[in-house]
Amino acid sequence: MEGSGERLVLNVGGVRYETYHSTLRAFPGTRLYQLTEPPMGGTLAREVFFDRSPHLFGYVLGYYRTRQLHCPPDICRAVLEEELAFWGLADAPLAPCCWLKLSGGDGRAEDFHAWEESELGEEQGLLGPIESPNSTRAQGTWKPWLWALLNQPCSSLAGKCAALLSMLFLLGVLVIFFQETSVQLDYFTSNFRPLEPWDGEKEGLPPPQAPTPGLVYQRAPHLLYLELLCVLWFGAELLARSISCPNKIKFLRSPMTLVDLASLFPVLVELAVGRRAERHPRLCLVLGALRVLYVLKLGRLLGLVEKPLALRVLAHTLRSSWREAGLLLLLWAGEILLFGSLFLYGELLGTGHGQGQSEVHFADILTCFWWTVITLTTVGYGDIYPMSALGQVTAAITAMAGMLTSVLLVPILLVRFQRCYAVALARQKLRPSGTL
Amino acid sequence: MEGSGERLVLNVGGVRYETYHSTLRAFPGTRLYQLTEPPMGGTLAREVFFDRSPHLFGYVLGYYRTRQLHCPPDICRAVLEEELAFWGLADAPLAPCCWLKLSGGDGRAEDFHAWEESELGEEQGLLGPIESPNSTRAQGTWKPWLWALLNQPCSSLAGKCAALLSMLFLLGVLVIFFQETSVQLDYFTSNFRPLEPWDGEKEGLPPPQAPTPGLVYQRAPHLLYLELLCVLWFGAELLARSISCPNKIKFLRSPMTLVDLASLFPVLVELAVGRRAERHPRLCLVLGALRVLYVLKLGRLLGLVEKPLALRVLAHTLRSSWREAGLLLLLWAGEILLFGSLFLYGELLGTGHGQGQSEVHFADILTCFWWTVITLTTVGYGDIYPMSALGQVTAAITAMAGMLTSVLLVPILLVRFQRCYAVALARQKLRPSGTL
Amino acid sequence: MEGSGERLVLNVGGVRYETYHSTLRAFPGTRLYQLTEPPMGGTLAREVFFDRSPHLFGYVLGYYRTRQLHCPPDICRAVLEEELAFWGLADAPLAPCCWLKLSGGDGRAEDFHAWEESELGEEQGLLGPIESPNSTRAQGTWKPWLWALLNQPCSSLAGKCAALLSMLFLLGVLVIFFQETSVQLDYFTSNFRPLEPWDGEKEGLPPPQAPTPGLVYQRAPHLLYLELLCVLWFGAELLARSISCPNKIKFLRSPMTLVDLASLFPVLVELAVGRRAERHPRLCLVLGALRVLYVLKLGRLLGLVEKPLALRVLAHTLRSSWREAGLLLLLWAGEILLFGSLFLYGELLGTGHGQGQSEVHFADILTCFWWTVITLTTVGYGDIYPMSALGQVTAAITAMAGMLTSVLLVPILLVRFQRCYAVALARQKLRPSGTL
Amino acid sequence: MEGSGERLVLNVGGVRYETYHSTLRAFPGTRLYQLTEPPMGGTLAREVFFDRSPHLFGYVLGYYRTRQLHCPPDICRAVLEEELAFWGLADAPLAPCCWLKLSGGDGRAEDFHAWEESELGEEQGLLGPIESPNSTRAQGTWKPWLWALLNQPCSSLAGKCAALLSMLFLLGVLVIFFQETSVQLDYFTSNFRPLEPWDGEKEGLPPPQAPTPGLVYQRAPHLLYLELLCVLWFGAELLARSISCPNKIKFLRSPMTLVDLASLFPVLVELAVGRRAERHPRLCLVLGALRVLYVLKLGRLLGLVEKPLALRVLAHTLRSSWREAGLLLLLWAGEILLFGSLFLYGELLGTGHGQGQSEVHFADILTCFWWTVITLTTVGYGDIYPMSALGQVTAAITAMAGMLTSVLLVPILLVRFQRCYAVALARQKLRPSGTL
Repeated sequence: MEGSGERLVLNVGGVRYETYHSTLRAFPGTRLYQLTEPPMGGTLAREVFFDRSPHLFGYVLGYYRTRQLHCPPDICRAVLEEELAFWGLADAPLAPCCWLKLSGGDGRAEDFHAWEESELGEEQGLLGPIESPNSTRAQGTWKPWLWALLNQPCSSLAGKCAALLSMLFLLGVLVIFFQETSVQLDYFTSNFRPLEPWDGEKEGLPPPQAPTPGLVYQRAPHLLYLELLCVLWFGAELLARSISCPNKIKFLRSPMTLVDLASLFPVLVELAVGRRAERHPRLCLVLGALRVLYVLKLGRLLGLVEKPLALRVLAHTLRSSWREAGLLLLLWAGEILLFGSLFLYGELLGTGHGQGQSEVHFADILTCFWWTVITLTTVGYGDIYPMSALGQVTAAITAMAGMLTSVLLVPILLVRFQRCYAVALARQKLRPSGTL
Repeated sequence: MEGSGERLVLNVGGVRYETYHSTLRAFPGTRLYQLTEPPMGGTLAREVFFDRSPHLFGYVLGYYRTRQLHCPPDICRAVLEEELAFWGLADAPLAPCCWLKLSGGDGRAEDFHAWEESELGEEQGLLGPIESPNSTRAQGTWKPWLWALLNQPCSSLAGKCAALLSMLFLLGVLVIFFQETSVQLDYFTSNFRPLEPWDGEKEGLPPPQAPTPGLVYQRAPHLLYLELLCVLWFGAELLARSISCPNKIKFLRSPMTLVDLASLFPVLVELAVGRRAERHPRLCLVLGALRVLYVLKLGRLLGLVEKPLALRVLAHTLRSSWREAGLLLLLWAGEILLFGSLFLYGELLGTGHGQGQSEVHFADILTCFWWTVITLTTVGYGDIYPMSALGQVTAAITAMAGMLTSVLLVPILLVRFQRCYAVALARQKLRPSGTL
Repeated sequence: MEGSGERLVLNVGGVRYETYHSTLRAFPGTRLYQLTEPPMGGTLAREVFFDRSPHLFGYVLGYYRTRQLHCPPDICRAVLEEELAFWGLADAPLAPCCWLKLSGGDGRAEDFHAWEESELGEEQGLLGPIESPNSTRAQGTWKPWLWALLNQPCSSLAGKCAALLSMLFLLGVLVIFFQETSVQLDYFTSNFRPLEPWDGEKEGLPPPQAPTPGLVYQRAPHLLYLELLCVLWFGAELLARSISCPNKIKFLRSPMTLVDLASLFPVLVELAVGRRAERHPRLCLVLGALRVLYVLKLGRLLGLVEKPLALRVLAHTLRSSWREAGLLLLLWAGEILLFGSLFLYGELLGTGHGQGQSEVHFADILTCFWWTVITLTTVGYGDIYPMSALGQVTAAITAMAGMLTSVLLVPILLVRFQRCYAVALARQKLRPSGTL
Repeated sequence: MEGSGERLVLNVGGVRYETYHSTLRAFPGTRLYQLTEPPMGGTLAREVFFDRSPHLFGYVLGYYRTRQLHCPPDICRAVLEEELAFWGLADAPLAPCCWLKLSGGDGRAEDFHAWEESELGEEQGLLGPIESPNSTRAQGTWKPWLWALLNQPCSSLAGKCAALLSMLFLLGVLVIFFQETSVQLDYFTSNFRPLEPWDGEKEGLPPPQAPTPGLVYQRAPHLLYLELLCVLWFGAELLARSISCPNKIKFLRSPMTLVDLASLFPVLVELAVGRRAERHPRLCLVLGALRVLYVLKLGRLLGLVEKPLALRVLAHTLRSSWREAGLLLLLWAGEILLFGSLFLYGELLGTGHGQGQSEVHFADILTCFWWTVITLTTVGYGDIYPMSALGQVTAAITAMAGMLTSVLLVPILLVRFQRCYAVALARQKLRPSGTL
């Protein structure tokens, strides 16, 4: 113990820290060092007062004593930075064992911001600023009313009715769509069946008649008119939306609008082409395929339901990790190319020995890629599988790689989800202004 | 450093915080601001005493100094709220970097409550309030005794015997049930086989005799009587339960009671219909299908075993996240509709080129949906698989979507399970009253 | 602010807490309450000293002020309990928002104990107390030497040679075993092929000759003698182990010893039976199946490698969660029974309409259970799949249930693994005595 | 309460702790114990000053009071060690309930180091020390320029052009490669088809002509020359890289260089062999298989893209857990051997009863191992599946084991990923020197 004559009392916010002058001389140029230098023609003060937080000063003083800057757990980065700047220690390196203590409260302000923006985007989204109609009253008040009617069905009885009606039309058009597929399947199976003559040839039977060209593609007209009715309703709805929307640009850019727009065409084109469609079955197939958009319109239903927090966080996580998803897809594509080629050569090299069975299940490398996808995802239909030992080895490696790849997705998704869920949960319990 | 004349000592619970008057003037109207205003014809006190926690006051004073309200890690929300209210700072916004520190002790009281309710519900559940029999002694004491005998088999030797007997009857009825399925399968395969004539037609053979109508559905009568015996025991047990149950309404609403009740009927109906059943094989099939309820009765066995904490938490998690589960099922249904339709048109468009092989594996869109389920779950039987390149592309996308969907379930389930497990573990180690 | 005349200074370990007498009167009968009662004919002390930790006393005083007992984050339960007992507050209920803060340092002592026992069991295990040979020197020193030679191959050059030799013999016996399987397969395929006559019958061909009874099961004798050589080595090794083992009972109970012992028999029995085996091919198959034990002996190799911490923790987690695993297996068994029966009746009810195709893929309910296992695990071979719409619905439900069941395993395993890994990591960094 | 005469004030860094002399006499020989022994002919000091952190001293004093050493949560190990050493308590055992508090800031310095090294290795890697060219200016400045041109394409326009050109050549060579596979497949399917004569033999048809030996393997020469062009470019690039590389040894050891080098050969060998290749189709197949290296060169593309943090952490996690991966692969190999043998004997024992169907799907034990891999990974092609009840039981166990094995991977990967991600996130937010 050295002489107490050198002792100095640092009254920081009321808490009296005591230390030796020699301790404070560890870092010249800092605010505490200056206390140890007597002013011009004066003496050193025995006690100095600072109006700072006494809590963190303990760690600052510890830095002078041990030359290692530690910090309390879960300290806010901004607080620590300000404190260090005040004491002239902005360049002090934090001890590595404390780096993680800091990280907690750090990126969170950004996370909170990202989450709030995402929530806002979901809620208001293309609705645009709701308050704008109030300022431009000259335009009439029916526009906001119409917009609310169509987009916030829970707000009024009329809105509920409109939503119910719209849902019924959607269900109707889906039923019609599924009916149509059976018509197209019947037409397809009766007109195109080249497999049978090929089989017959093998068995020495006379080839069957060519598909009767008279069996044309014939849709029940009443289905078409019913579908037209539904589509007209959807068109009217889309028109009403586009007129009443406060923010036209956002509205037009939204994918839902594009789906709505594109789903109007199939039935119109089919009616326009009319009976000539019977001679262009391929066009009918394309028009049918376009009708899959009706299924996508079901997504609007999801918008009406209030989603629980966990799912909103999940959606936000998926949206915010598109870069990771993109690179993982690239990696997957690379795996498919690699294992597909390996499988092809494994089979070719393995079956060339002439041991009795030497047939491969594929005719080109694209089929190998298809096999790779089905094996990597562990679906394994069994339409293609390796016949040779070498091919089986490549297939086994592919199957294991597929299992590992699916496991790799879990930690990335999980860690991001956990962070975001904690943020969302904390935000939910504070008022918008940030008060308790 | 400013003059010490302005300094004020705030003795908060014994800890002396010191600061300048100017610092306290940061937020007018608060309790600390008032200290800087001299009372009528008086002077400012040099030291003021507050009987509050000195720990949190450091953060309150920090708010005056830096105009940012931080809080210590893992602080209880209620404590912070009360402290801020005392100092007149209820509207002070918490710094965003501290929002997460607060969330910890926050929703937990609710979580604890939900968990305790769930535990209680499991234990007492339909047992109803156990203490009610005590109050109505006139009804006799045999009811609670019977109830305990049937539902808490570990409590007495008679209970153990009853449970063992019940278990033996259950095993017996299951063995009989499995025996009966083989009778029904034999009957089915010998009476209905329309595939064979169809095959014969193709190969030019004479069609086989029509299924002999005389081969009637004939069950071994002794099996039926043995089953009746078991069912009578179950009926007696159900009757005893329904009489002795203290809370009749809860008892009737419980799904286990419904299963018990419904499982009584098949054998009774079959005996009532008697020999006429031989001419209604479909009815026999339905009665057989109803016997699957015997398997569900095994669930009661699970109730007898003491379940480890982790599994109880898992069950609670699943029960409490039914909303998320419902929406995910909706999403899944949407995916099935979407990918099923895409697959259908992918195959139709892809095989229409007439390149030799142009057969599809399905006859209607329902089979496509079935294929989609089997691909999304990565089961992949291989009864249906795409034949064309376009169909293979849609199938590859479907398989990848399926893998991703299964991965999506993990984080939601995991985050909720972790929270609930921590709660359950903490609760387990405290006495019911909350003391250590 | 009340009069300061009532104020009391509580000097707890040097920190001076101040409060009013009225505050301390909140809980009569406690140690602090007694301070407010003047002793017989005396006056109240203005300052009282307690030789206790000042840190926790802040929370104790907070209990008097707010009547809610909070605690600092991550406080050790034992510390808190002792402190509360000292102040006479052992029955004070902890506020629910603090229950989780406590749970941290709570079950951990047990966890540490379980982990240390598991590690010790793994390391010493059946080795028994190593120090016992030292005390009984009369028995000679060759026993511990032999034991170390056989079980700690890294400790000496001779040990390494013995381990290498043993490994070579093991590899040799495996190669011989795989060779023998091909002999048995050849015998099997040439003697039993009842499928061909059945096929021939269908196609109207003359039935093939009955399998020539003369083609007897004939193993290459040199393989058998080579195998005998290896097995003799294993027997010698086992004998040496059983003689030198310090703890005979543990040694005999260990599963590895049982495997070693059982793997000696097949070749001995085969030699004893000799040529008569040719007329009992079934016995040869059973003896072959017993040779699978050679593969299990590979597990000893794993014991020689030093396992990384994560894997040891994983093994410990799996071992310590056998109750959860057992109940999940029960649940799985229940699912198999339920979905298997549902699938059977779904198919039977669905195909009974006589729409042309009405065949089922199974002949008894056991095959349905087999199908359920393959569907629940999402393997999906495709040997059995539903043919009817109703069967497809049950199959779809089964596939989804299978996917969910596999996801359910993740959180239980993960939460336990995380706890145990943190414990193991912390233990690894302390000396065995618990000092830093 | 004992007499205050024995009380001692310990002024630690300004905070006055008070305790009894008797308390400090708990641990003889420590620094605090010495305070209780009066010096030669002196009296005991009433107050002693230590220039240490007052925060931790509370826990040190608590050790004297309760004989249990606790520590604050998330304390840095180094800080605690130093403090204990100062007070002469280096051998004090930490209470088990605090072991986990310490582990936090513990292994992290190593983790940070490992992560920084990994990041540096990725960025600079084989680039070698960038500053070395500056020191050896005599070598000319074109080398670093060339190196940067080839490896940091974003740094200059010329670099971007070179990267684009290189990418185009790579795409070109991949297209050519895929074209070549179709030539090889055509050749293969027209020359080797021994399956058909075998089928014919069974059906009593005359055997088809032997494959025409004249149909030789003929590649389109223009493809070969185009491929040569691409490969020449790759050779030039590799040469430029090898000349300009500052660290030749690291460059030669890098796997990418080996891939680059090996991918030069196939086309050169094929040109050298020339027309004679037509008589050695096997050689051509091997050369084709070597061309799969072109796909691996795509990995260089991945190096050009900036990878998000989560993926870099994932790569680091996978790289740093190669020991766990290796042992799990060993475990997997053991499972394959075990379940493959079990399946073989299960099928053989199960089908030997002669019940009508008794065929197995495999001809040797290697096929059983192949089946095991496909079942463990839950791919389940369905080319091999058990036919007997006993085989189905082994298959069910295998399928369940496969599902469990895939679940086992998750926790190990996840726990390591979480630790590493936290470390990487914290590091990213500090300046390289460690200051805020």
